[in-house]
Amino acid sequence: MSEPFSFELLRGEEVGPRVGLVRTPHGRFATPAFMPVATLGAVRSAAPWEVRAAGAEIVLANTYHLYLRPGCDVVASLGGLHAFMGWDGPILTDSGGFQVFSLSHLRRVDDSGVLFRSHLDGSEHFFTPELAVWAQNQLGADIITCLDECPRSTDRGAVEAAVRRTGQWAERCLAAHARKDQALFGIVQGGVFPDLRRQSVNSLVRLGFPGYAIGGLSVGESKRETYEVVSLVCGLLPREKPRYLMGMGSPEDLVECVGRGVDMFDCVLPTRVARNGAAFVSEGRLNLRNARFARDERPILEGCDCTACRHFSRAYLRHLILSDEILGHRLVTLHNVRFYLRLMAEMRVAIVNGDFERFRREFLERFRPVDEEVRRKNVEARLRGLGR
Amino acid sequence: MSEPFSFELLRGEEVGPRVGLVRTPHGRFATPAFMPVATLGAVRSAAPWEVRAAGAEIVLANTYHLYLRPGCDVVASLGGLHAFMGWDGPILTDSGGFQVFSLSHLRRVDDSGVLFRSHLDGSEHFFTPELAVWAQNQLGADIITCLDECPRSTDRGAVEAAVRRTGQWAERCLAAHARKDQALFGIVQGGVFPDLRRQSVNSLVRLGFPGYAIGGLSVGESKRETYEVVSLVCGLLPREKPRYLMGMGSPEDLVECVGRGVDMFDCVLPTRVARNGAAFVSEGRLNLRNARFARDERPILEGCDCTACRHFSRAYLRHLILSDEILGHRLVTLHNVRFYLRLMAEMRVAIVNGDFERFRREFLERFRPVDEEVRRKNVEARLRGLGR
Repeated sequence: MSEPFSFELLRGEEVGPRVGLVRTPHGRFATPAFMPVATLGAVRSAAPWEVRAAGAEIVLANTYHLYLRPGCDVVASLGGLHAFMGWDGPILTDSGGFQVFSLSHLRRVDDSGVLFRSHLDGSEHFFTPELAVWAQNQLGADIITCLDECPRSTDRGAVEAAVRRTGQWAERCLAAHARKDQALFGIVQGGVFPDLRRQSVNSLVRLGFPGYAIGGLSVGESKRETYEVVSLVCGLLPREKPRYLMGMGSPEDLVECVGRGVDMFDCVLPTRVARNGAAFVSEGRLNLRNARFARDERPILEGCDCTACRHFSRAYLRHLILSDEILGHRLVTLHNVRFYLRLMAEMRVAIVNGDFERFRREFLERFRPVDEEVRRKNVEARLRGLGR
Repeated sequence: MSEPFSFELLRGEEVGPRVGLVRTPHGRFATPAFMPVATLGAVRSAAPWEVRAAGAEIVLANTYHLYLRPGCDVVASLGGLHAFMGWDGPILTDSGGFQVFSLSHLRRVDDSGVLFRSHLDGSEHFFTPELAVWAQNQLGADIITCLDECPRSTDRGAVEAAVRRTGQWAERCLAAHARKDQALFGIVQGGVFPDLRRQSVNSLVRLGFPGYAIGGLSVGESKRETYEVVSLVCGLLPREKPRYLMGMGSPEDLVECVGRGVDMFDCVLPTRVARNGAAFVSEGRLNLRNARFARDERPILEGCDCTACRHFSRAYLRHLILSDEILGHRLVTLHNVRFYLRLMAEMRVAIVNGDFERFRREFLERFRPVDEEVRRKNVEARLRGLGR
């Protein structure tokens, strides 16, 4: 390969679901892909070989968090993020934009950049498009992202400003990007407003990025609106470039948005609900704290090949979770990540077989969606910028 | 083997260090052995195959904790502790006596048993020798222990009563013990008083247990007194039975007490200090939170074959620990457990080679002992009955 980064579309029409292959300097990954979130350079509680064994081909790490601690220069001096965290496959880093904007310590934003206070120690930092790219050049992920502005999706005035600014920053990011072995993705903003989404896509596509992220969703709008925007933006983006829907991904989101043409996802949901003792199964979520599992000898999910299901009963996992024993958290995390990655693999197969619509219908009939309460909490957590 | 439990002494004089082999229904383990503590049925954060890979041949679980949650009957209905926790090797359970007596919720103790309140929910429970044995019969460990009374080691009046009562209870435990596939160990009490230790040993040996635990230490006396008692008791116990020093085991304790003839140890220290970000090395403990490790690319310990040292730098582990990422806790736990188990293996080799005294001297010259502050905290934790 002469190009360090490429996207090959293997199957897919003008609209709707598609299967592809992304090549990076650290290997390939199939799309649609789910990227487990390694906020701090680790997928919460899991070792890299476990993440790999769960079927992950690419992981995501958060620039904002790594910038603050241990520092991008420290990671660079230790050989970059791949060496630092012991993950030799592809990595994507976000630009830190989302975390900066969703933090309550945001101090000021103007065309030059964003002034904010660290959620860790209150120290003041100024992020510019150039700094966000520099930080990601230091980390050395295979795919990096532009600094964007992410307002509430339904505030037209704020979204208009964000689209304009995100476009300008994209141009500056591109100019600042020093490492040609890293693919820089643009980020589409525009909230729930079709004309602004169109404007954002146009300003980015004009610059010619190797891939496009869809940002500014799941920050205030209804689920129906979210999906409409995803459909719209996928229809506007160039067919031959990968599309990454940022930070959103309940199982039903994955299915709905793969159906609309999204190629890449990340979401903290599988790791975060695991912390609360909830495990994904075909019908929705099992709350393993429930007393009805006290003597349940079955695995979380019959037929699941994850580490938890191969070795342990629901009763044991429940005991560990109730006892706050972190092995429990870890095993449920591995199950949930495996559940997500198996879902992606099943969708890829269904698409290749021309059978996705049936898969989607059957999945959604069976799967009880993450309820509104959980969704609301997730959005709140996003807005608080916890990002993990 | 006709006997489900046996101890074969392979090397060792009348006094001093010795090497042996214990056979149980779930396999063999070499002595001197260190048993990682799986309080709740899991070695904090580690999966059973990781504990095995770290070199553990036997683990310890706490009857008190499992009795309260999830309940010994629940564990029995799920096939016993081996099946429940996914550990198919030998297991030892303590009787719960130590935890009951070190709890602040102790209500009353008399010859019939102990009345106490659960540290979890304040519920009242009455432990008798018969109940302690029944509970351990339910759990199904390979080695179980008598209910004992464990007072402060320097309070002669209390220790006298404890020796008498522990002897009576030992007799009742033996009578109540229903499962002949489990070896029941007696527990020697007697505090720091040689005559009472002698009296305790005599009353137990008369009953003829397949092994003897040394209890009532590290609860108030000086380190010098501890070691003197260990020497004394090892000299009194029958040579052909294994000797288990309960709940005590800094690295220097292991070396000193193996030198005095102890065959089995358990201690929460390797897992507990890992939670605080401290790792054992040949010279003592490294506090991985220290800023001097921020860019340190070396493993915790050069030449160590543990999971943490084979894959990750001190800098990465420090980052995880400072970020409260539980993978950090987990990796340092695996290192510390491996350090302990390697130390045991090295001591066995030194004993077989007739070279233990040199090994001991060199180890103690090099190794900076766990300082008094840590020791004091550990004793306090023991007295609080945290037991994990």
